[in-house]
Formats: sequence, C-alpha cells, structure tokens
Amino acid sequence: MNNYLTENKDRFLSELMDLLRMPSVSADPKFKDDVLRTAEFLREKLVAAGADNVEVCPTAGYPIVYGEKMIDPALPTVLVYGHYDVQPADPYELWTSPPFEPVIKNEKIYARGACDDKGQMYMHVKAFEMMMKENKLACNVKFMIEGEEEVGSENLATFVQHNKEKLKADVILISDTGIIGNDTPSITSGLRGLSYLEVEVTGPNRDLHSGLYGGAVANPINILCKMIASLHDENNHITIPGFYDNVDELSGEERAEMAKAPFDLEKYKKALDLGDIHGEAGYSTLERTSIRPTLDVNGIWGGYTGEGAKTVIASKAFAKISMRLVPHQTSEEITEKFQKHFEAIAPVSVKVLVKPHHGGEPVVTPTNSVAYQAASRAYETTFGKKPIPVRSGGSIPIVAMFKSVLGTDTVMMGFGLDSDAIHSPNESYGLFNYYKGIETIPYFYQYFAEMSKA
Amino acid sequence: MNNYLTENKDRFLSELMDLLRMPSVSADPKFKDDVLRTAEFLREKLVAAGADNVEVCPTAGYPIVYGEKMIDPALPTVLVYGHYDVQPADPYELWTSPPFEPVIKNEKIYARGACDDKGQMYMHVKAFEMMMKENKLACNVKFMIEGEEEVGSENLATFVQHNKEKLKADVILISDTGIIGNDTPSITSGLRGLSYLEVEVTGPNRDLHSGLYGGAVANPINILCKMIASLHDENNHITIPGFYDNVDELSGEERAEMAKAPFDLEKYKKALDLGDIHGEAGYSTLERTSIRPTLDVNGIWGGYTGEGAKTVIASKAFAKISMRLVPHQTSEEITEKFQKHFEAIAPVSVKVLVKPHHGGEPVVTPTNSVAYQAASRAYETTFGKKPIPVRSGGSIPIVAMFKSVLGTDTVMMGFGLDSDAIHSPNESYGLFNYYKGIETIPYFYQYFAEMSKA
Repeated sequence: MNNYLTENKDRFLSELMDLLRMPSVSADPKFKDDVLRTAEFLREKLVAAGADNVEVCPTAGYPIVYGEKMIDPALPTVLVYGHYDVQPADPYELWTSPPFEPVIKNEKIYARGACDDKGQMYMHVKAFEMMMKENKLACNVKFMIEGEEEVGSENLATFVQHNKEKLKADVILISDTGIIGNDTPSITSGLRGLSYLEVEVTGPNRDLHSGLYGGAVANPINILCKMIASLHDENNHITIPGFYDNVDELSGEERAEMAKAPFDLEKYKKALDLGDIHGEAGYSTLERTSIRPTLDVNGIWGGYTGEGAKTVIASKAFAKISMRLVPHQTSEEITEKFQKHFEAIAPVSVKVLVKPHHGGEPVVTPTNSVAYQAASRAYETTFGKKPIPVRSGGSIPIVAMFKSVLGTDTVMMGFGLDSDAIHSPNESYGLFNYYKGIETIPYFYQYFAEMSKA
Repeated sequence: MNNYLTENKDRFLSELMDLLRMPSVSADPKFKDDVLRTAEFLREKLVAAGADNVEVCPTAGYPIVYGEKMIDPALPTVLVYGHYDVQPADPYELWTSPPFEPVIKNEKIYARGACDDKGQMYMHVKAFEMMMKENKLACNVKFMIEGEEEVGSENLATFVQHNKEKLKADVILISDTGIIGNDTPSITSGLRGLSYLEVEVTGPNRDLHSGLYGGAVANPINILCKMIASLHDENNHITIPGFYDNVDELSGEERAEMAKAPFDLEKYKKALDLGDIHGEAGYSTLERTSIRPTLDVNGIWGGYTGEGAKTVIASKAFAKISMRLVPHQTSEEITEKFQKHFEAIAPVSVKVLVKPHHGGEPVVTPTNSVAYQAASRAYETTFGKKPIPVRSGGSIPIVAMFKSVLGTDTVMMGFGLDSDAIHSPNESYGLFNYYKGIETIPYFYQYFAEMSKA
C-alpha cells in the first residue's frame, strides 16, 4: 500500500460505514427518503474528492449522481459506473447483525450493500481522491452512480440516451463483480442477461372452504405448482418452446479452456451444505452458472401462510420467476416466449396473468482490448498474479446497453468473493478486498493511459 | 315463529352480534385473551338461560364450556356440541366490512364465525332458553362448547375420555353444517375426514444470488413445486402409494341416489366465476366433494414476496397441505403414507421436513335412527318439506371420536348455506337461518322424546 492509502485507511473505512448505514433499498418505496439521502451523500464525497460539475441528476425514478475531472483532452477518458442502491435485506431474522448497522468481524464488513455495490463503488471514489491528492490522475474521469440497479436500471437508459456527449469515454469501468479468491485474481469477461416476470393464477373468485369445495374446483396453488414444475424436463432443460434457439453453444476448445479455472466441487457443496448439486444434464457446475441459461422461481406465495392450520382453497397464487440469459438470447425474446408459453399451458379452470418486470442483455467482453490488458496488468501488479478471465452468471444489464447506446466497451474490475453473500442475509465485504481495490484502480488509470498512447 | 321467539328476536340477534365481536381465532396465539373472553361470555349466557353446573373447564389448550339441565332421568338426554373459536380472518383486505365488526346487510349477518360456528352454536343456547322459559324442555340437555375446533380439537378427546359419565347422552346434536337451500332443507349424513401437514424443503443453507448460483443448485421453490405437482396424475388421481386402498367405493345404486340431489353446474361455475370445474376423472362435482378423497395445498410461501424484483434463490420453501378423507381411510394411515411418500420423492439435492398438524376421521351417520328421524320431522315441521340426507365434503373430526369414545351417535342439524363463505372473507349467516334454527331445534327435542318413548 502507498503512503496516502496507509495514512487514510481508517477514514476510508469509516466513510464506507456511514454509506452502509443508509438503507437505500430501491425496490421498496418505504425507503425512498433514504435512497435520496444516499445520493446526496455521494455528491458531497465526490466534491470533497475533487470532482468538478458534480450534480444529482433527476430521473423519472431515483437520481443519478454525476461528477467529472477533465485534466487533458489528449488523455483517454474513463467513465466509472456504479450503483448506490441495494437489494432488500429481508429475511431480517437471518441476519446475525442488523443489515443497516455495519459491523466488522474477522476482517470483514457485514452490511447490506457492503460488497454489492456500495463497497466496490466507493473504492473508485477513494481511489480518485488518492490520485487527485497525489497528483497521479493519469486519465480524465467521469462518474455515473445510479440508484436503480437492483430494480432494473429503469431510467438509466433514458439518461444515457440524452447525455451521449457528456458521457463520452474511451472505456467504462465497473466494480460490481468478483474474483475467484484473494489469492486467485480474475476479471469478469462475460455476464448473463436477465428476464424477470411475475405471474398470478386465479382459481375461484374467493377463498373457499377446502372441505366443501376441495376436489371440485381448481386450486390455484396446485395449478401454479404444476405449471412451474412443467417448465423443466427430467434433464432440467427448460421446456419453453424456442428457449434455446439463439443460445451460443461453446466449442469443445472453449469449454476445455473454461474447465481450467480452479473449482472444488466438494468445497462448493460443503459451503452450501448441499446433499448434491442440481442442474442441467450434460454441463459442469461452472458451465451451468455461466454459459447456460436458467429459470428460477425467486418467490412464491398464496393461501394461508400464518401459524397453525387453515383449511382453505385460495382464490389466487403468485410467483416471481426470473431467467438468466446467455449470448445471443435477448430479454425481450425470452420474456415474450415465456409469457406466450405460460398462458398456453394454463388449464381453462384458471385465469393467468403474466407481468414482465425488467430485463437485461447478456454480454461477452473482449479480452484482447487495451482496456482489458491494462486491467489485467493492474491486478498483476497488486496481486502478483495474472488474473484469469471468467464468465460470470450474474447480470449487469447496463453493460450491453452502454455498448449499444454509447458504443463503449466495459471492463469489469470486480474485487468481491462468492462468500460475500450478496443478495443474501449477512452480506459482507473483506477489508482486504476494499483496500486492494483502492490500491489497484490507480494502476489501471496509469497503464490505460500508457497503453493508449502506444 | 312462536311468541317468545318473536318477542325476543332482536335481543337474540344483538347477543349474537356481541359474540361475533370477539376475535376468538384459536390458530393465532395473539388472540389468546379474546378466545378466553369468549368462553366466559358463553358461561354467563348458559347460566342466564337456566343451565345448571355451568363451568369453564380448563384443558391443556383453550377451555371447554359445559352446562346442563337434567329435568327427569326417565327422559332421553341430548348432548349439544359446538365451538366458540373461529378461523383466522385473513386476508383482511378482501373483507368489505371488518371481520370482527358484525354488520347486517340484505338480511345477513357478516362477520367471521357468523355461521361457523358461533351463529349455529348460539341457536342452541337461545332455543334452550326458549324451551326453559316456556316450560317446554322435553329432554335432559348437556352443553359442551369447545374452543379448538379450528385447530383440530386437540384437547377435546382427552376431556371426553375423562368425563364419560358426565357426558353420557342418547344422542349428540351438532349444528356446524348446512342445508342445500332455504327452500330445500337437508341433513348431513356423512362427513369427510382430514389429514393436515406442513412441509419444508431446504436447498442451500442460505439465500443465494440467482445469477451466481442459478442453474447449479437445487432451488427449493422449484423442487417443492415439482413435488407437489407430482401428487396428482393427469386424471387428478392422487399418486401417493396406497392412498385409495381403503376408500369405500359406492355402488351404482348409491351413486344414482346421490345424483338425485338438486345441483346446477352452470350456476355453480357462475357463482365462483370458473372457466371450468376441475377434479378427479370419472366423478361428478357432488361426488368429488363428498365421497372422494382430495389433496389441496392450503398455503405456500418461499423466497422474496415483497414489492419489486429480487433475484434470489431461497434457502427454504414451505407449504401447508391437507387431504380430505372418506370411509374407511384413517387420518393416521394417510398422514403416514403422505409423509413416507413425500420424503421418498425428494431429490438428494434438498432436505425435506414433514410436520403433521392434525387429523380427523370420516363418518357416515345412520339415517334410520330415532334421532335422525326426529331431526327429519323437525325440519319438515318448520320448512314444510322433508329434508334430503346429504354427505358433506367438510370434516368434523370429533363426530367419529364421540362414536368411538362415548359410543354415541351424532345428528348434524345444520342451517348454513354454501354461500355463507365460511373460512373465507365476508363470511355471513342469514337471519332466516338463525331464527329458523332456533325455531326448529325445540321440535327435535319434542319428537326425540316422543319417539324414544314409543
């Protein structure tokens, strides 16, 4: 670590803790004021770090925080993207410490958003401050931090459309992904897309006594289960007609290359306490979570869920269902195919409503670009090891959107770990990873400037 | 209506309204005090009506209210059973008026418990008061009103076991069932049994990010849906091995007899706004809800069920599942078969926990008994029509228990209607039915005394 980082690490940490105390849950309207406070907090920090033209840009939803430092038009420009909103924290009862009261245990910060994405996004703010204070900023930089990533970045596309000039850059830099391990650096070279829908199945027009009506009317919960069950066949292939039509099948060489990434199945099962893994026949666990599309129910509810027993046939049953997409599926295509199929398989004894939530497109980023190479060297400098390119199963829909609207490629310099439990109770982020990120980012700026010149 | 009833009908109604204002939900501990208040209310009313030895008998759960009037050992004794607890009222938002603030609209009382069973149970208290005041009580009478019927009468059996002498009677009289219509009286001559379980499916040991893990680990919600879906085959037969082994198959004659009961399928579908009915192949709607066993999911929950979208793979998924049983299935047998089967079909990638809630045995009551004939004549007197014997789909588990422990038969003199929506939002009970019950019950006492002598 350099001097400035060493001297300021405690403040860097306490500022992050302040940021994590704000419950900026974009999915739940009751946190609206907290989300807005969080944007204001970032505005102040960017100003303090030395950014110019810092503003909280209004959108139809939550605002986008923008700031920049243009030092020399001759130098390349880096557009940093991140998000200050977080996933809902429930189920709260499974947290060992309150999700919005960050604590440090065994060298990790525990809080909702610690890794996704406040911890990783804030590394860039602090790395920027450091480069400014040490007069080492090697590129122009622009910040665009949004507050709706966890709900599908609904208003970001419009903002980008209307600010193409302002957002002009040579590369987009994002830390919202992970590395294989603290001793095994990696760079995400691909992401899955997403299609997210909510379904509602209606049976009788009111809740019914299961004794008087049981056996004669369609129980919407039983029917919903049948419909969901039918979406996977015995090989866990997805049965939606045409679902795999556009899936990019990898070559044997590519799959062999992937298989080289270190992976310990027994450790994996043990860490999740699984009797066995469960997935699509014919593919490895790494393939199932990266190059193959999936369908998961993210939530289901209906009928009586309170204490004790209630002999009722519910009028309605609901489920939230999402699909992860791979090149070259598109979320619009898959959402449409799901909707058509789900309506088609519904028996006449029920009514079905399918409500698309949001989607995102899959991406694969080139590993031979100057930006990727600069990032690779940066990791190598601070980790002492060349990072492995990895295709991740997660989705950052805006990466594809940036490419199509701005024509700009993205480099995903993530520093999180699978064990950070993002989207889960007890989300955490390692102090090692937080500081390592702040240390690594400036090298990217340095190498990217050098290599762009060459 | 006789004079006493006419003169007191307003008070009889306002007393019932007071009773309905008490949220005596036995399934939910937070209503404990209200359930106990309700027992106390009944004690006072029985004393006021002229009963002797009235007491609130403690049990391991909610108390049983007992009272009696022994006028002559030579006369037959009627044991009146009813329950003062009610089903949970949720979903509250579907009630047009608050469930525990009874209102009268178009000649009906709307409140949770209006029909099941406060309204029907209280008819007996008022009919008793009337017979006492008019010196017309023709039999000895005993009251046993419990507070745990909606949670499986867990402590009633013990109470009955320990009080066989005290509860000695020639017939048990219960009003907790219905009639076909106000112009078509009927008497329930059979009931289905019940087996109720709760299941828990556990996948990974914590909620997971559906992008990073989706496709590689068992999603407990998807698995639960598959397991539930597999419990019915394409003919809606239940697939649990041995489930139908002991089912009493009716003869062609018996089924032809049943088919004579008035039933309008189009009206039925219209009333419930059903695109079509849905049930076991080879049986009519009336048969599906009376002489055939069923399996229904009464509640299901898991994952994210809040607003918006959360891309999570839940660690656990849950369901409440109940089965209606017919002679000669037993709840113990079916509960065991369900549990064994459900555990057997669980893939190794998940853990399954099956928790039996409570059960009850199916019954068929003889229609040639003196008691049944007395009841039949009572309906004929007040309705001007001979009641039709009907086998109901509901369950009153204690009827079989009374027969086995006390050796006493039951007559089910119900006055409710299907449209009363018991166990549903906006439960109601007709004023016609409430007063008709109070009017009819004394005739049963009179005829039963006469016919027992003969």
